[in-house]
Amino acid sequence: MLIHDVSIPIVTGGVVYPGNPPIRVWLEKGIPTGARSNVSGISFGAHTGTHVDAAKHFYDDGQTVDELPLERLIGPAVLLEFGDDVRGITRAHLEARAAEIGRHTRVLFKTRNSALQSRPEFVGDYTFVAPDAAEWLVARGTELVGVDYLSIEQFHSGQAGTHLTLLGKRVVIIEGLSLAGVRAGEYDLICLPLRVVGIDGAPARAVLLEK
Amino acid sequence: MLIHDVSIPIVTGGVVYPGNPPIRVWLEKGIPTGARSNVSGISFGAHTGTHVDAAKHFYDDGQTVDELPLERLIGPAVLLEFGDDVRGITRAHLEARAAEIGRHTRVLFKTRNSALQSRPEFVGDYTFVAPDAAEWLVARGTELVGVDYLSIEQFHSGQAGTHLTLLGKRVVIIEGLSLAGVRAGEYDLICLPLRVVGIDGAPARAVLLEK
Repeated sequence: MLIHDVSIPIVTGGVVYPGNPPIRVWLEKGIPTGARSNVSGISFGAHTGTHVDAAKHFYDDGQTVDELPLERLIGPAVLLEFGDDVRGITRAHLEARAAEIGRHTRVLFKTRNSALQSRPEFVGDYTFVAPDAAEWLVARGTELVGVDYLSIEQFHSGQAGTHLTLLGKRVVIIEGLSLAGVRAGEYDLICLPLRVVGIDGAPARAVLLEK
Repeated sequence: MLIHDVSIPIVTGGVVYPGNPPIRVWLEKGIPTGARSNVSGISFGAHTGTHVDAAKHFYDDGQTVDELPLERLIGPAVLLEFGDDVRGITRAHLEARAAEIGRHTRVLFKTRNSALQSRPEFVGDYTFVAPDAAEWLVARGTELVGVDYLSIEQFHSGQAGTHLTLLGKRVVIIEGLSLAGVRAGEYDLICLPLRVVGIDGAPARAVLLEK
């Protein structure tokens, strides 16, 4: 079994979406200072690194991250790759790739974003998924969409149309997949967000298993 | 595919091992107060709820949680159940169950602890794994051991013999599995800790898949 770790490493001061809590990792007590064991602490936003959005992120009465069915987060997925010229994935892009998507209900997009993850600062012109692409995915019965930057939405779009369309139909969104080392194709996805009760999203560890 | 979620729900003020950072979950910005979306923050110790210990927890130069091979954390596992009379799992207990363990390299213990998880306070007399049992497991080539309370070690043992034996051989320890709803038997385990760089452990989501 070949396992690809497609999770962004979590470090103090790591890149976060603007306005989100900073990432802080600290040694609460340590062997070097006389403690018996090392015990670290972690503080971050629910949308840090590789993470899952639940409907509650944009719908205040929506499904929370601990309510997401695990069946959606584990199973076959298709990874599509887009060239560096693609700055927004539209319905037209997806229609042209419909055969590649096939009957998959979990769809992951690899874009130029995976290369942007090595940048030490937030990059606003990341490649996004346009609202009309979200509508197309929902119409096909897609259950999960994964992207390789911290948001699936165009930065400062003002509308949040992609989030509202997907989360309105309880489509799970994974943001911040680290796909630089993975080729397009079919995999088994396992994405397990922390079981945090009652909130809008949670950091996750995500892996792709080679078929 | 039947999926058992064996992860402890994470909530503000949830039970932590004494001396560990408290759990705090907060709404950083929210739709009820005029924000476009809900964005929560989370602060906790690396050994919160269902979590993984890496060697660095007790060996300052030891393997860190992001260095754990994912191959160890995904695969067949056997779940053994012990009666409420068992307050410490010893070598003798395991020798008597050797046939049940068979060739499994991932061994999970369900004890009275899973019932203790509903208690609102830390319980010091949880069932632990004795150092001689840890030695027996290491000698058999065990790669992962999972238990259903926040520590595998006897509370206030003073020696940390179980941790030192297991982590000294890079055996992965999962603590805080929530096993109340799961029967003894063989499963496929998936335990994915957050990819936090350079530290002693990390919160995880863990599931058992029915064979």
